[in-house]
Amino acid sequence: MSKTNSLPGKVTIRDAFWSAMLDQVADTVLPYQWKALNDEIEGAEPSHSVENFLIAAGLKEGKFYGARFQDSDAAKWIEACSYMMRHRAVPALEEKIDALVDVFAKVQTEDGYFDTYYQVAEPDKKWSNLAHGHELYCAGHMIEAAVAYYEATGKDKFLNIMRRNADYLCRRFGEGEGQYYQFPGHPEIELALYKLYRATGETRYFDLMKFFLFARGKSDFMLHEKEFPRDNRYFQLDYHLAHKPILEQEEAVGHAVRAVYLYAGLADYAAETRDPAAIARLEALFEDVTARKMYLTGAVGSMAEGERFSLAYDLPNDRAYAETCASIGMIFWANRMLHICPDSKYADVIERELYNGMLSGISEDGMHFFYVNPLQVIPAVAETRRDMDHVRTERVQWFGCACCPPNVARMIASLDQVVASEQEGRTYVHQYIGGEVSLRDGLRLVIAGGFPWSGKVSARIEGEGGAADLAFRIPDWCRSYTVTRGGKAVAPPLRRGYACLDGVRCGEEIGIDFAMRCEYVFANEKVSEDAGKVALRRGPVIYCVEEADNGCDLANLYLPADGPIAESVQQGGQALRVRGYRLRQADPALYTAARPELRETDIRFVPYYRWGNRGKGEMRVWLNAKF
Amino acid sequence: MSKTNSLPGKVTIRDAFWSAMLDQVADTVLPYQWKALNDEIEGAEPSHSVENFLIAAGLKEGKFYGARFQDSDAAKWIEACSYMMRHRAVPALEEKIDALVDVFAKVQTEDGYFDTYYQVAEPDKKWSNLAHGHELYCAGHMIEAAVAYYEATGKDKFLNIMRRNADYLCRRFGEGEGQYYQFPGHPEIELALYKLYRATGETRYFDLMKFFLFARGKSDFMLHEKEFPRDNRYFQLDYHLAHKPILEQEEAVGHAVRAVYLYAGLADYAAETRDPAAIARLEALFEDVTARKMYLTGAVGSMAEGERFSLAYDLPNDRAYAETCASIGMIFWANRMLHICPDSKYADVIERELYNGMLSGISEDGMHFFYVNPLQVIPAVAETRRDMDHVRTERVQWFGCACCPPNVARMIASLDQVVASEQEGRTYVHQYIGGEVSLRDGLRLVIAGGFPWSGKVSARIEGEGGAADLAFRIPDWCRSYTVTRGGKAVAPPLRRGYACLDGVRCGEEIGIDFAMRCEYVFANEKVSEDAGKVALRRGPVIYCVEEADNGCDLANLYLPADGPIAESVQQGGQALRVRGYRLRQADPALYTAARPELRETDIRFVPYYRWGNRGKGEMRVWLNAKF
Repeated sequence: MSKTNSLPGKVTIRDAFWSAMLDQVADTVLPYQWKALNDEIEGAEPSHSVENFLIAAGLKEGKFYGARFQDSDAAKWIEACSYMMRHRAVPALEEKIDALVDVFAKVQTEDGYFDTYYQVAEPDKKWSNLAHGHELYCAGHMIEAAVAYYEATGKDKFLNIMRRNADYLCRRFGEGEGQYYQFPGHPEIELALYKLYRATGETRYFDLMKFFLFARGKSDFMLHEKEFPRDNRYFQLDYHLAHKPILEQEEAVGHAVRAVYLYAGLADYAAETRDPAAIARLEALFEDVTARKMYLTGAVGSMAEGERFSLAYDLPNDRAYAETCASIGMIFWANRMLHICPDSKYADVIERELYNGMLSGISEDGMHFFYVNPLQVIPAVAETRRDMDHVRTERVQWFGCACCPPNVARMIASLDQVVASEQEGRTYVHQYIGGEVSLRDGLRLVIAGGFPWSGKVSARIEGEGGAADLAFRIPDWCRSYTVTRGGKAVAPPLRRGYACLDGVRCGEEIGIDFAMRCEYVFANEKVSEDAGKVALRRGPVIYCVEEADNGCDLANLYLPADGPIAESVQQGGQALRVRGYRLRQADPALYTAARPELRETDIRFVPYYRWGNRGKGEMRVWLNAKF
Repeated sequence: MSKTNSLPGKVTIRDAFWSAMLDQVADTVLPYQWKALNDEIEGAEPSHSVENFLIAAGLKEGKFYGARFQDSDAAKWIEACSYMMRHRAVPALEEKIDALVDVFAKVQTEDGYFDTYYQVAEPDKKWSNLAHGHELYCAGHMIEAAVAYYEATGKDKFLNIMRRNADYLCRRFGEGEGQYYQFPGHPEIELALYKLYRATGETRYFDLMKFFLFARGKSDFMLHEKEFPRDNRYFQLDYHLAHKPILEQEEAVGHAVRAVYLYAGLADYAAETRDPAAIARLEALFEDVTARKMYLTGAVGSMAEGERFSLAYDLPNDRAYAETCASIGMIFWANRMLHICPDSKYADVIERELYNGMLSGISEDGMHFFYVNPLQVIPAVAETRRDMDHVRTERVQWFGCACCPPNVARMIASLDQVVASEQEGRTYVHQYIGGEVSLRDGLRLVIAGGFPWSGKVSARIEGEGGAADLAFRIPDWCRSYTVTRGGKAVAPPLRRGYACLDGVRCGEEIGIDFAMRCEYVFANEKVSEDAGKVALRRGPVIYCVEEADNGCDLANLYLPADGPIAESVQQGGQALRVRGYRLRQADPALYTAARPELRETDIRFVPYYRWGNRGKGEMRVWLNAKF
């Protein structure tokens, strides 16, 4: 087994936009989340995640509290802290992790089992509910955290705990005599086992990952589990992506986070093995999601019930589930697709998530979060209707089910993983995030630019002489661009969406200018919810209107679909002002034959990811188009 | 106590549109529904309603089946048959009713109690669940049926059974020593007790009605009932309209059918007593419903959960609950408001329901029904999403909860009740339904016309000489009209929306021509779901587009909001063809910067009430407006 494509060496981020985010994650978000995990945030829903470990370790008296997958919240936080250590030291956090790892050692049972919910709350029911019990899901997050912490610090205590756990799983699950032919309801362990295999070189972890991937859908054992919700059509085998063997799954269905985590796991397998059947399946599923089931912001999962994918093109803006974790899962998946084949369509999706669907999950102060990311909110309506029960109209401090906040933290902390990759000796630049990428032969690729507000990028190879082949992604939103080498315009060939520059020498200045203009976006005519509507994009950023800037009843705003956009870019793009219209009713009746009129007005936009930072109010991405 | 306003004498219907409906109800609907009540419709959900009576009477072995209010389905059917007898004899149905009444006599217990659910299924739980048990609701429908059957046939066996039941209720409920200070979760008994009072002259029935009306909201006894769903915010006291005393209820909330039945009961009380506080409350509630919470079709109740009224202006077209029974309840209420004061706004609402929200509940063949009446359907989406679980995409043969089908039958059969009324010696013509209204002194008002397809109406008083004061409603949709007396144009004074003609003599020909043109309708700018949209109305009929005529993806259709309507009226109005546009996407991407274009096209409309008669397909009332 071999990987023909891989991450380059160390990536250092020095970027106006993202370095500030990383600092905020280190200084504010991670310390805040530690408090949340310890139930120290006043007014927030309690987590009990740390408390559960202490109880399971026998260090405290008490009952398990929270969701069955509460262990994973702490695990993701450790993983986030570990990735952060690649950017800068966080000794106060490292201390807390070491102490927690000592607790973990006491939680684990002799045989390697580890799951506080089942150990504390239902010791007799271990492995009785693979569909919803989340034991393998939690194991996955714990393993990912252990690998990340080991790689960041070299300390192997946590890694060894989770290796014992993984070894236990290797004994329990598989096709062999006396093993259970079962797989998890919620994929995640697959990603973890792959990382553990890469970190340790032990192929049994890869084999178990492969088993979990391909056993899926070949047994209906879940249907025979006692707690399986037989009567709810939204929670059947397809919810778990277990309705068919994975290579026979023709479209994205079921629980969106389960789905994209599974696809990411399959992509790890495919990148490792180059299995053509798996690659073909992944490409088809990626096409299904991105061409038929994705919101403009990159969000996926348009049904609240079952947090599911819906039919192709069924993308209601107000009832979107659009979980932050699903956008993060899309980044995982797309990034692994880049390891199979560097095609800009994958990096485009990552960019879309980074500046929109993922980033909307965290507030400007780093201490408030969205779990659900609708593209349209009228607070009073969302708070009244049962069919919007899942929509929060204000960012909140923490969630009872808190998968998203630590997931955002680990995503931002691991941003270095999505910047560039190497294939067949060529370095591909996927994201225009300023910083430095280590290349072979002691060379470094230094990138500078002002994304997402400016389309100007410069790149230079530094080192002691030598050259490298480079490839720069042409973003899907970009209509025109110029490339210069050493100040001279060039027209590099395009390969799968990348401008390829061969033999770029040390010190040679590469300049790229992606024309970044406000642009109207229209949805496919099959998307009934967006028919006749238009959204505003500038570069990778999708914009929205908010009540704070435009008053209420935002449904009455119009943008002129034809003609040039009368825009005024403010704060470099952090706000826009566009000439448009507001529909005004001629009389106050509920229904009237009197024709309302369009009155010209300035419409003020902010980036979608910034919505909900100024108190409660209406928000809307898609406005009426005036044709 | 006195009523200053009342129904005129006998009304005979001879009308191209409605006589055919009445014939269909007599010949098809009522015989079909009898079969349904006897579980004789293959493929339909069983009713068991008749079976439950036989079991409760001890004439058959078996278990109760169906909803707790299953008795009311048979009751409404008897009531419908009884009203039908005012139009023509239905001896085969009368025979079945007589046999069923014999069964009823055996169901009733010594003390007067009557309710097959509690007698058969939960004899120990009688009166333990006023909130949801529906004992008083069923009693109400049985009493209404008994009164109707007595008035139609003069046979008093059924009436006497239900008088015993009502007397039992009079003993049980009230403010006296040993009585229960309780009221029903679902109003209905109020309407019934009023009818029983009018039929028998016994004031104790009126007193009990008044008690139920005004005790409501003054006790929270429901909260202490065992089966009260304490944890569901959609089913608290406001769901039952029991959150406040009725005269303090400032807006329409809660279960829409409960609400409008309650308001109708209060209107009976107010018409009888002229209580100014009750009248003022009713006017405010009527304004709240019709100016803020009603769909264009007259439908009310925009939330599925709790089948409730939502916030003002929250009127989603695809998730409307819009129960057929709620539209019927609106007719009951509005008609009683006319008895308080003949104001055209009440008759306008009745007309809107008759030709739209109510009539959509029954198919052209009379044997298929809608319970929920959305204004927009994409079948595959409605069948997939949990938030549209309540929407049926095809008319069905019967429902497990079958309140609507027999309610439509009794509404149409009692159409003569909404045509005209008399106040202070003047006869008000509310609905332009052809036929004959008996006046005083042996005079008859003969009305002819072609509603809803033609706005031409003629009226003449027939008899042996004499004259009468008349008033004709000017419909809210009418922009211009002419009135002639004996062929000469006149300009009669308008009073509360009625053109008043004094001293119309026998034989004098009245001609009214209401200009009936296609007209665009726009919604209030607070209705976010309809912002930028337009609907088509012609006279009292609201139109819709269907996939059968226009292909799929109806969300892309546009009507030109300005300029004259390029219409072609077909089959007298049963279909319309209007010049409009269809949005065509420039490329097949999910999102694109390529501007779609509007291509001119003919758009074909059918009356909303006729939708869903040609197989499964998309339907839409509100189209995009091109400004």
